[in-house]
Amino acid sequence: MVVKIGIIKCGNIGMSPVVDLALDERADRKDIAVRVLGSGAKMDPESVEEVTKKMVEEVKPDFIIYIGPNPGAPGPKKAREILSESGIPAVIIGDAPGLRVKDEMEQQGLGYIIIKCDPMIGARREFLDPVEMALFNSDVLRVLAGTGALRVVQEAIDKMIDAVKEGKEIELPKIVINEQKAVEAMEFTNPYAKAKAMAAFVIAEKVGDVDVKGCFMTKEAEKYIPIVASAHEMIRYAAKLVDEARELEKANDSVSRKPHHPEGKRLNKKALMEKPE
Amino acid sequence: MVVKIGIIKCGNIGMSPVVDLALDERADRKDIAVRVLGSGAKMDPESVEEVTKKMVEEVKPDFIIYIGPNPGAPGPKKAREILSESGIPAVIIGDAPGLRVKDEMEQQGLGYIIIKCDPMIGARREFLDPVEMALFNSDVLRVLAGTGALRVVQEAIDKMIDAVKEGKEIELPKIVINEQKAVEAMEFTNPYAKAKAMAAFVIAEKVGDVDVKGCFMTKEAEKYIPIVASAHEMIRYAAKLVDEARELEKANDSVSRKPHHPEGKRLNKKALMEKPE
Amino acid sequence: MVVKIGIIKCGNIGMSPVVDLALDERADRKDIAVRVLGSGAKMDPESVEEVTKKMVEEVKPDFIIYIGPNPGAPGPKKAREILSESGIPAVIIGDAPGLRVKDEMEQQGLGYIIIKCDPMIGARREFLDPVEMALFNSDVLRVLAGTGALRVVQEAIDKMIDAVKEGKEIELPKIVINEQKAVEAMEFTNPYAKAKAMAAFVIAEKVGDVDVKGCFMTKEAEKYIPIVASAHEMIRYAAKLVDEARELEKANDSVSRKPHHPEGKRLNKKALMEKPE
Amino acid sequence: MVVKIGIIKCGNIGMSPVVDLALDERADRKDIAVRVLGSGAKMDPESVEEVTKKMVEEVKPDFIIYIGPNPGAPGPKKAREILSESGIPAVIIGDAPGLRVKDEMEQQGLGYIIIKCDPMIGARREFLDPVEMALFNSDVLRVLAGTGALRVVQEAIDKMIDAVKEGKEIELPKIVINEQKAVEAMEFTNPYAKAKAMAAFVIAEKVGDVDVKGCFMTKEAEKYIPIVASAHEMIRYAAKLVDEARELEKANDSVSRKPHHPEGKRLNKKALMEKPE
Amino acid sequence: MVVKIGIIKCGNIGMSPVVDLALDERADRKDIAVRVLGSGAKMDPESVEEVTKKMVEEVKPDFIIYIGPNPGAPGPKKAREILSESGIPAVIIGDAPGLRVKDEMEQQGLGYIIIKCDPMIGARREFLDPVEMALFNSDVLRVLAGTGALRVVQEAIDKMIDAVKEGKEIELPKIVINEQKAVEAMEFTNPYAKAKAMAAFVIAEKVGDVDVKGCFMTKEAEKYIPIVASAHEMIRYAAKLVDEARELEKANDSVSRKPHHPEGKRLNKKALMEKPE
Amino acid sequence: MVVKIGIIKCGNIGMSPVVDLALDERADRKDIAVRVLGSGAKMDPESVEEVTKKMVEEVKPDFIIYIGPNPGAPGPKKAREILSESGIPAVIIGDAPGLRVKDEMEQQGLGYIIIKCDPMIGARREFLDPVEMALFNSDVLRVLAGTGALRVVQEAIDKMIDAVKEGKEIELPKIVINEQKAVEAMEFTNPYAKAKAMAAFVIAEKVGDVDVKGCFMTKEAEKYIPIVASAHEMIRYAAKLVDEARELEKANDSVSRKPHHPEGKRLNKKALMEKPE
Ligand SMILES: [Mg+2]
Ligand SMILES: [Mg+2]
Ligand SMILES: [Mg+2]
Ligand SMILES: [Mg+2]
Ligand SMILES: [Mg+2]
Ligand SMILES: [Mg+2]
Ligand SMILES: [Mg+2]
Ligand SMILES: [Mg+2]
Repeated sequence: MVVKIGIIKCGNIGMSPVVDLALDERADRKDIAVRVLGSGAKMDPESVEEVTKKMVEEVKPDFIIYIGPNPGAPGPKKAREILSESGIPAVIIGDAPGLRVKDEMEQQGLGYIIIKCDPMIGARREFLDPVEMALFNSDVLRVLAGTGALRVVQEAIDKMIDAVKEGKEIELPKIVINEQKAVEAMEFTNPYAKAKAMAAFVIAEKVGDVDVKGCFMTKEAEKYIPIVASAHEMIRYAAKLVDEARELEKANDSVSRKPHHPEGKRLNKKALMEKPE
Repeated sequence: MVVKIGIIKCGNIGMSPVVDLALDERADRKDIAVRVLGSGAKMDPESVEEVTKKMVEEVKPDFIIYIGPNPGAPGPKKAREILSESGIPAVIIGDAPGLRVKDEMEQQGLGYIIIKCDPMIGARREFLDPVEMALFNSDVLRVLAGTGALRVVQEAIDKMIDAVKEGKEIELPKIVINEQKAVEAMEFTNPYAKAKAMAAFVIAEKVGDVDVKGCFMTKEAEKYIPIVASAHEMIRYAAKLVDEARELEKANDSVSRKPHHPEGKRLNKKALMEKPE
Repeated sequence: MVVKIGIIKCGNIGMSPVVDLALDERADRKDIAVRVLGSGAKMDPESVEEVTKKMVEEVKPDFIIYIGPNPGAPGPKKAREILSESGIPAVIIGDAPGLRVKDEMEQQGLGYIIIKCDPMIGARREFLDPVEMALFNSDVLRVLAGTGALRVVQEAIDKMIDAVKEGKEIELPKIVINEQKAVEAMEFTNPYAKAKAMAAFVIAEKVGDVDVKGCFMTKEAEKYIPIVASAHEMIRYAAKLVDEARELEKANDSVSRKPHHPEGKRLNKKALMEKPE
Repeated sequence: MVVKIGIIKCGNIGMSPVVDLALDERADRKDIAVRVLGSGAKMDPESVEEVTKKMVEEVKPDFIIYIGPNPGAPGPKKAREILSESGIPAVIIGDAPGLRVKDEMEQQGLGYIIIKCDPMIGARREFLDPVEMALFNSDVLRVLAGTGALRVVQEAIDKMIDAVKEGKEIELPKIVINEQKAVEAMEFTNPYAKAKAMAAFVIAEKVGDVDVKGCFMTKEAEKYIPIVASAHEMIRYAAKLVDEARELEKANDSVSRKPHHPEGKRLNKKALMEKPE
Repeated sequence: MVVKIGIIKCGNIGMSPVVDLALDERADRKDIAVRVLGSGAKMDPESVEEVTKKMVEEVKPDFIIYIGPNPGAPGPKKAREILSESGIPAVIIGDAPGLRVKDEMEQQGLGYIIIKCDPMIGARREFLDPVEMALFNSDVLRVLAGTGALRVVQEAIDKMIDAVKEGKEIELPKIVINEQKAVEAMEFTNPYAKAKAMAAFVIAEKVGDVDVKGCFMTKEAEKYIPIVASAHEMIRYAAKLVDEARELEKANDSVSRKPHHPEGKRLNKKALMEKPE
Repeated sequence: MVVKIGIIKCGNIGMSPVVDLALDERADRKDIAVRVLGSGAKMDPESVEEVTKKMVEEVKPDFIIYIGPNPGAPGPKKAREILSESGIPAVIIGDAPGLRVKDEMEQQGLGYIIIKCDPMIGARREFLDPVEMALFNSDVLRVLAGTGALRVVQEAIDKMIDAVKEGKEIELPKIVINEQKAVEAMEFTNPYAKAKAMAAFVIAEKVGDVDVKGCFMTKEAEKYIPIVASAHEMIRYAAKLVDEARELEKANDSVSRKPHHPEGKRLNKKALMEKPE
């Protein structure tokens, strides 16, 4: 059986680029098919409506993942309405501002995953060009992966896939990923590696606050430019700290790896030279 | 006027996640609309055919970007055939193996951008799980951004947009991005920053060779695990080196930034506190 | 004329060890005499009362600085009462919890300096021994010095000394040191150095929140140990980031130095080999 | 029983700020009370005499610690005379120049602790301002803590406290802390961590020689500025090396921690998640 | 018995300076005597002929090592002819271009060791002065030592010495050192250390390609200067990566050491504090 | 005219491998010919005598350089006697212990260059194997090159060459290279780069003291192993510090380069892209 997964990407958070890849990291899984529809960087209601409807009406997957910034904004709000009424099980993956519509999503019968370490970018024209944008996303991606946040997301979706395969009703995930949940998923062996990953998570979370300040609460360019620049310096160091955590695990040959079997099962290993089981 | 851009993502290369975002880094551009269709990690001919046809027949954008690994593989081959016959201007963005079908793409009337520093991943089950996959992509993304490769891609697509806006025929890009082209686009001020970026590019390029060896040319796990692990250590250092290059430019307050104006024009600046023009 | 400065140290914040040294970094100032009274790590009301009374009644300096954690706690409260009634101009230097008694201090006729980047330590027995305590203070001291927070404090006190020397009434400082005020005092030349210093300040500020969570809001050792350990990893990285900021200024030969003249005047210089003026 | 400890701080060495805090790192010890008297950065005979007499005549603690630079200088000489005649057990803690008066202190019936890795600062006006002073002290503090020198001092004083509590005569410490004694106290598990700590100690010790050369043996600013600047670069690297040593121990989860029990006993632990005993 | 080893050094590769020292690292071996003849940086046929003849005709050692760049160049060709006819067992140690004359050397009855990670230097006048040359050699030496390439060479020569001592015929080594052979000789305990060493080897190997491009295939200074500069940035990072590998082994106290016994036997140890056996 | 230079290498100091290469870094100088004779790691009187006599009696160069450890040891003593009586101008290059025979060399009519930052190695069997030896030499070479010590040596020899070419009498160098002389030769632009290089020099110099202690003044393996290991950690950090100094100069595009012209003249440049003059 092949489970069909529909993914809607409107606007971008750090998790967006890898949410589909994380399910099938070597592209050899036989039990899933993924279809992605997206509107690029934009998340205006019209664009979101168009792609969400196409997903619901044409692709008709077994379940739908909507991923993007701020689930409470007008665009994602539109998506939530459509998905809520679609009859297709759906989960919203978003960043910290999504906490404000957590209850609303619950009432809409939607699942949600809020990733607190996936911060807003420093979206000021004097600072953010395509290159700076990509570097920021590189750092965020490292934090997501190295802290375990990415694994929480991936395992939640894998459980949805399992349910479909087993013919069970999908239990929609309702998860707020904080530093504790993230590092638990990574199964660190060295306790300092775990502490470093938690530290990186908290710094990344704070980046979002600083960028909100720089983008929405400060008017003068001479003030907001240093603020958004400082936020990107913070995420750069959060990424370095996560790297240090992983290097500690490498020193102990205890990096936790959980590759997918081609049949979809999550395997498990720590010592690099051993087989996953 | 709003230019409609169709992007097909089947399988993943380092550039895939940001190719759309790089056109509209602050999501405030009024002159473009982007639609993305994708098949996740997979790039089998059936999946590729489905999404490519949907793009050609339903979305009907002003031009199409197909991005993914190895443009010569069966899936992308299918895409190229459909796009070639579609009448819609199309460009293929791929990694180094794409060099083998460069002439073929030219004959098909397709544009192409081959990014030599976007290496194959170490796709061995004992090594590559979702976390390792994301860390690899984080490093590749840093190399793409910091060396200038990403800017070459973005500027090439921006020129296509300009052509549509000006009512001209699109001149399809035919670009092989090597280290020289990449660093030229980044307009480094400090010559050592430029040399470091070139070094990072070349290391990243070599990563692909090592991963090919580890994935396709070595049979015993005890041999191929260290090989693919070494490839990921290489890209990690390429990313560090690119970071060092950018820090040198920061020391000189000469980081080149080229943000988009909401009307689509590429602005230009170096000193952090100045306005882009 | 020699201005007599009384300094009371009860308990410890990162600024405590250097508040006196920062006024006379080469111990050659002829215009001030400093007397310090303290109760070590403790700040219970009895100890604080004893040393504060001794300062007020026996030392009788021209003005008094009280420095220590949480100006709202019972010990410092006692000190504030005594100082408020002493007739001697006095300023309270404290960490972020002091914000809660800002108005109260104003009403008591006391000056205050609240240093937001001087975080609480991870005071859990399983984690904090004398060595860990000293390492934490080393990191905090680097952040205080490198971000400019220390200079804000020192300049505020120097102004009080100036007033005494000029026979003017002392204008008591009322300062909350945030990242903007700190970096302004450091007069960074390179804007990225400034952004890095701001980033370090914000991370250090967040350290306090994490340690409060680990020390007061979490009961199980298996949970609070990783939390306080993560806070110390955060401050370690804040210190690294401040070091990176200073190295950028060194690269530009633009480190701002403001040594004291033996007569007490603050001199000024940037290029290392030049004379301060 | 509460042991009353008097600490005199005149002038500053790296150990000065933490000598009291190291006895009671979480401020929860019930068996000691600490009183500190100090004269800030100055250590002239008049100031030293005033505070030392106040300590001896008014505070009358169970024992006295005098800490500051160069125990052979006129100020500390005055203190030693007063303490020698006071009848109160006293120990002098000082830096390397104190070696010259080791025998003299012995004859005066004083204990002593000479810390060879607590180097003189680069006290030249063109170089040393309050910020540079604090950064230097941050680095020295890291070296003191990470090499084990601080633990030697703390354990020596704790033994004096034990003696008072047990009603025994205090055996005054007579200790010269070199790299071997320091690292022994830190109980390193990894032998390379130990070697790195020893290396850091030796570099720190050498810093003092370079600063003496720059401050007292070189007249021309163009020569002495680079000399004192080089000394501070040395201590910065000694601090980095100590950090590397500690990170090695973290990799082995073998950081030695010896927190105080509230009743004063020194506990002991290595694995981060275990209880101290 | 003392084995007499003749070493000819004409021109320089990274291995040249230590080929003799690696046989007798503490200069206490009683079973060998080494004579070195060389022509400095030059390897023209006349110089090579002169020193090779002197070695063959005057020194007459038990066997001869010829070491230098490109065994196929005219100078080394001359050496090979003389050595081939000399009747003295001889081995040629060279860099990657030597692969082209591998069969030729075999036919000449010569042994060979080709070190693929010993790259050509960036020999352009605008870039390479004596200081840059020495820094490059420092980095290459670190790569040779840390990856295990040096140990392969040393063990091959030690086997030749053993043969002479045992009165056996020397079996001439025929070795191409690639990353697998190098790391095998280093007997890494931690698999990530091994992977990092392999990565460093591959980067170093690539450096040679880049320098060949910069020195021989590019004419304009504005193009070749960045190319050779980038090659030296690459080797600098290869050296850093090797250092990281060794630090991982230090963290595990598993650095493989194989010192020579004074009688020539290679001893063996891992834990730092244990005796070699 | 071609000046013939004879170089005798008996035993090894950090400068030994590059003393000849530094004269002709690109092997394109037409005005010199170099002949090297050496005895490998050994410097016993018999070996030294043999190679020195061969040099004096057979090679008969225009002048002779003898390089190796401790010029006062029996082997080098023998060399000095032979060279003193040979009638050929000769200079002894050695490490710090050579200071003890400085006057003796002067009386023997010999030139000398004593390099204080070229330290003794940690020659203990439990620690020093061929790999550790090579890593140590890599670090020392970096210090020699990056601090300017190597340039002092090279310029002194180049002056001897000039004298021969001009038909003048050779003025034999009498140089003790300390940190000031070294950094002066490197013509640093950034004053912090200079200070860092001086710091590295001083640390390297101290390494020799520590290794002497570990090799000659400590008997128990459990004590001397950590001592020699700490010395190698020190030189590793000295090398890192020198690298940091050079990176500062790269940030300013002010790396001083003094390549040789093929006719032997030393050229001069700073900006990377400019021509040397
Ligand atoms: Mg975001
Ligand atoms: Mg930037
Ligand atoms: Mg790829
Ligand atoms: Mg605090
Ligand atoms: Mg710790
Ligand atoms: Mg001191
Ligand atoms: Mg070479
Ligand atoms: Mg030596």
